[in-house]
Amino acid sequence: MARWEGDTQGRLERAALELFDEQGYDRTTVAQIAKRAGLTERSFYRWFTDKREVLFGGRADLESHLLKAVAAVPPGTAALPTLLAAFATAPEVIRPREFLLVRSAVIAANPPLRERELIKLASLAEALTAALVTRGADPQTARLATDVAMAVLRLTGQRCLADERADFHATLTQATTDLLTVATEAVRP
Amino acid sequence: MARWEGDTQGRLERAALELFDEQGYDRTTVAQIAKRAGLTERSFYRWFTDKREVLFGGRADLESHLLKAVAAVPPGTAALPTLLAAFATAPEVIRPREFLLVRSAVIAANPPLRERELIKLASLAEALTAALVTRGADPQTARLATDVAMAVLRLTGQRCLADERADFHATLTQATTDLLTVATEAVRP
Repeated sequence: MARWEGDTQGRLERAALELFDEQGYDRTTVAQIAKRAGLTERSFYRWFTDKREVLFGGRADLESHLLKAVAAVPPGTAALPTLLAAFATAPEVIRPREFLLVRSAVIAANPPLRERELIKLASLAEALTAALVTRGADPQTARLATDVAMAVLRLTGQRCLADERADFHATLTQATTDLLTVATEAVRP
Repeated sequence: MARWEGDTQGRLERAALELFDEQGYDRTTVAQIAKRAGLTERSFYRWFTDKREVLFGGRADLESHLLKAVAAVPPGTAALPTLLAAFATAPEVIRPREFLLVRSAVIAANPPLRERELIKLASLAEALTAALVTRGADPQTARLATDVAMAVLRLTGQRCLADERADFHATLTQATTDLLTVATEAVRP
């Protein structure tokens, strides 16, 4: 059993997503989530400030994981390969596909949650850019590489959600190839 | 005099940004903006729902302009070149640099405005992706090209704001070249 599946945070997240899927996000209460997880409301609030944050715990885990992974890339590696090497380790913290499918549907149906997701993604991009700058990248190149890497990650996630047989690493490599194809078309005569 | 400088919307936007610059965004009222522009509050509300939207009128103009420009690109053009050709016409609607510098500072200092900016940019990206799909692009390629093009546009804007002598077209071309450099590094052995 992966760490996430057995620990308290993971139990609360799974219970919450099950309930969101069964009865909708709006109709689910913190009390119900805690009960389904076999925990108290007090336990819930030790992990999350509110119901909404259950959907974003994975983003926080991903951000801290990726920042450590960026720091572990050999010095002298260019900006985009550094980010892609870090992204290749993301499966260590990414939630199971069934969880992410429900999460994605809940967020898509709820404009305030979509806004929250945008803010979290912008914050992740800023943190990655800052990490590249710390490693010596020029700030403008760091930001461009981050924006491009986030586009690759988005496409990878989309394809992995759409196809249960998709392998994360192969999909990340394919998305990187697609990026190069798209970028090259901009300068083709 | 450009259209924007002489029309009512432009007068209100300039008056608002002057006041935001002089006394801060929070301390500026709609009544003050209308007075500075030599107009009534009623005129203000014909153009903007509230003080905040004064900062985003330019985004709405840019979006409708870019969608028309995308539609005017010859059929059969690839996704990213289509967007870059549309972006090349952006100076027709982009606000003057002095205006954008104040706008950028006001937004950077105010988290709810930063969130609003993120939402507007996400909405622009969705509209451009949809426009590419209408023209026949595969949805995943359309989204990847849009994300990459938005990264190029962001870098172009950043450089034009930082350097008053920067020419928009030359800067857009340079940012496109930088994109190719960054993307190519991802596959270099």
